[in-house]
Parts: sequence; C-alpha cells; structure tokens
Amino acid sequence: MIAPACRLDVVSGSLPPPKTAAALVIGNELLSGKIEEANVHVLARTLRSLGIELRRVVMVLDDVDVIAREVKELSASHDWVFTSGGVGPTHDDVTVHAVARAFGAKVVEDPTLAAMLREHYQERCTDGHLQMALVPEGASLESHDSVRWPTIRLGNTWLLPGVPEIFRMKLAVVVDRLAGGVGFVSRAVFTKMDEGDLKALLDQVVERFPDVGVGSYPKWQDPAYKTKLTFDGRDPARVDAARDAFIALLPDGEPQRVE
Amino acid sequence: MIAPACRLDVVSGSLPPPKTAAALVIGNELLSGKIEEANVHVLARTLRSLGIELRRVVMVLDDVDVIAREVKELSASHDWVFTSGGVGPTHDDVTVHAVARAFGAKVVEDPTLAAMLREHYQERCTDGHLQMALVPEGASLESHDSVRWPTIRLGNTWLLPGVPEIFRMKLAVVVDRLAGGVGFVSRAVFTKMDEGDLKALLDQVVERFPDVGVGSYPKWQDPAYKTKLTFDGRDPARVDAARDAFIALLPDGEPQRVE
Repeated sequence: MIAPACRLDVVSGSLPPPKTAAALVIGNELLSGKIEEANVHVLARTLRSLGIELRRVVMVLDDVDVIAREVKELSASHDWVFTSGGVGPTHDDVTVHAVARAFGAKVVEDPTLAAMLREHYQERCTDGHLQMALVPEGASLESHDSVRWPTIRLGNTWLLPGVPEIFRMKLAVVVDRLAGGVGFVSRAVFTKMDEGDLKALLDQVVERFPDVGVGSYPKWQDPAYKTKLTFDGRDPARVDAARDAFIALLPDGEPQRVE
Repeated sequence: MIAPACRLDVVSGSLPPPKTAAALVIGNELLSGKIEEANVHVLARTLRSLGIELRRVVMVLDDVDVIAREVKELSASHDWVFTSGGVGPTHDDVTVHAVARAFGAKVVEDPTLAAMLREHYQERCTDGHLQMALVPEGASLESHDSVRWPTIRLGNTWLLPGVPEIFRMKLAVVVDRLAGGVGFVSRAVFTKMDEGDLKALLDQVVERFPDVGVGSYPKWQDPAYKTKLTFDGRDPARVDAARDAFIALLPDGEPQRVE
C-alpha cells in the first residue's frame, strides 16, 4: 500500500497547518563534489523547532537563470524560501541578481550596506567590495544583536550565505523573526525486527493515525537494533498514542528501546 | 557582471560535452532534520571522476506524486538520474511505485529478486519481505561482483538505497557501467586577498577562459589563506592556462599556495 501523500500535512483538528519552507542551495563547488554541503541539516532542524515544515530542497549551479526560475517557483509554492550561497562579490555570486529577477525587481545599491562596507574597508574599499551592497529593490535588511551584518530578505525569500559558520550565525535572525509556531514532536521505537516483518504492523498504525508521520529506518549492522521507527506530529498526545499503539502490536521481547 | 550561464558546459573544441546527471534524494527524515544527508557528496565525487556533470539535486518528502513528477522531469532533462532512498518494504518506501508512475510502467514482482529473497529468508519470508522484489515493469537489474544485491535501473534512472553504507557499495555498479567519459580536472590557488580585491582580476580570467569554470571560495578565519580560487574543466592544458593567467595577475607575495 502506498502511504497517503503528504502525511505530515494532516494534523489533528485543533491545530492550523504548519507553515512550509523550501531551501535553494547554490554552488558549483557542491555539485562537483569539491565541498560537502553543510547547511541543509542545521536549517532543517532550526525550522523544525520553529514548527515550520521544510518540504523541498533544490541544489543548483551558479547559474542566474536557473536560480531565478527556482526562486520564482519555490517562493510561490512555500511560505518561506531560504537560499544558501552566492552572496559574495565575485563573478560566481549571482544570487542577488537571480532573486531580483525572480521577483521582477531591479538591483540597487543599498545605502546602509554601502556605508557599512566603506566604514569597514576604509580607504581600501573597492568597487569589488561595494558589490556586497547590492540588493534587490524593495528588499529589507534583517538584523539581530548577535550578527553584525544584516541578512537580505525580499518578500518571503531570505538570502543566506554559503559559508557554514556565517550561515549558522545568521539563523539567529531567522529564529528571531519566525518564532511562535507550534513545534513538532518526535518519538522513536527501536527494534531488532526487520522491515519486512514490521510492514504489516506499521500499516495498521499508519491507517489508524493519518495525522501522525510514521517513519521506518533500517540500521546497517548495529548490534543494538535493526530498525528505528519514528512517530512525528505537532499534537504530542496523538504522537504518543501512535507510538504506544505500535508498541502494543510488537511481540514479546520487543521493543529494544523507546524514546 | 553576471557569469555566463552554465559555464561548465562550455568545453574546448575537441571534447564532446559531458554527460549530465541529476540526483533525487528522498526522505522525510532528511527534511525534518532527524538525519543528515550523506550520499550526495560521494555521488558528486564519483560522477565527477567519471566525467559526468551533476547539475541538479532535489530533496523531497516520501510522497509518491512528488517523486513521480520529479523523476519524470529530471529523467527528461538529464542523461542520468540517481534516486537515493525509499526502496525498502514499508509504507514510507514509495520510490519503486513513483519511478514506475513517472515512466508509465506497471509495478511487477521480479522473479529473480523474489527467488533471492525466498532463499535469504527461507521459511521466515513474508509478504513484507517480498515487497522488495517489486520493480517497475521493464526495469533491468544491474549487478557487480562486489555487491550481492542488484540495483534497479529503469531507462536512465538508477534506484539507489538511502542507507549510506549500502549506497556507497552500490556506486561500484554505477562506476562499472558508466566508465569511459573524459574526467574533469581541477586546480586551486590560495591567497590572502579578499574577494572584493580579487573580483577585478577574476573577471579578466573568466572573460579570457569561457571554457574553464572559475570559482571563488572565502575561508572563514583561516590563518593560512583568505580565499581559494578554483579552475575546472576537462582539458588540462586550458585549466592550467587559466590558473597561470590568474597567478600572473596577483601582486607580489601572492599566491600562498597552488594546487
């Protein structure tokens, strides 16, 4: 049986549906395997803690047309979009131009950013440095006490840098602005049964709890357990009930562990 | 100046364009941040070594409609597609069904896989285990001496597992089948200059060497260098020439290191 589509969308009656998000990860260096992508996981965890559902991640080359098309599509189909990468001053940094194109905006020099750059670089400030003052017209600069450099946001699209250390710092601004949603809860059950034996039991729980996301993850050669089952949702009582209903179906000696 | 679109596509006259690939990474556990994605990087490196250009990665939920739509699009626009995840027997494993739908194929039990499963599980073999014998009609099973379990391929779409250890093992089959392309070469130059100062120099090299991919990557707080410049292509002579032309533009005391 195929699982119902978008199970995570179905929440129990009292909760509004979660806000949705997409991430656009930009960089030739990632697709060529030179550098390992390091921002999606922390973004996913951060959004999860905010009660925002990350539904889609797309990784593309430093290509202004491709990025513009993706931003247009993702921003129209999700509540929030987060881009990662391509925000420096060099020829391969095309995210600002692409986001501007996606929204039909011009690229303009932001006076606040230009002043910050001039102050920072003093007499060393070049046209190259001032490229970092370019923003899509109409963008807002999102600041937070913990991060000196503002984050560019245009509509529902946040432009985050690719450098992992700076990406993490800037998430503080996102958290500050997007807090207030109902967070997800997650429970887990570990068993020594394999997925083939678990399938029939899981199908019963999935059918009884359409509002709970049920996941099954085999572990490769771990002596402690063979399969981890996860139960996710935003109503803790329903999530616990789904987990306990599953445990009740297990044979003697199981589960190995419950979280 | 915006970089020309798809620079990596432009190769010097004597070489045919590289084959292209896309990856579709499937799993609620990745988008919810429970598990960190671990297969794209090794796939990217492997394809690179085969001379195949990974142009796009999409990460989606365990949703058969979404996966089917992505496979249809990606397989039409790339030479090869690699899916990761969703190939087990439980309700959240929908990749076989989705790939079948993308290609308008039925899902059928493969007799070879069914026989292997029955032999492995003996009298313990359940309908759940036999779910793993389901394939899109018309699929081929790709095998290699180093991997006992065959990999399902339908047309240009390879169905790889999400478990990182097994994903890596199965890449041996991909390498065996897709070898023979002209590989990429990559050179690097490390400098203590910042991107703002480098921009004007890089623009000259990008203009002179449209067939070489030039990348610029700032390093966060590394005493050894501030920016890494990369030069990529499939013609080593042109890549070296681009790198050397860049080095010739640097001021005294630079570069810090060349690779």
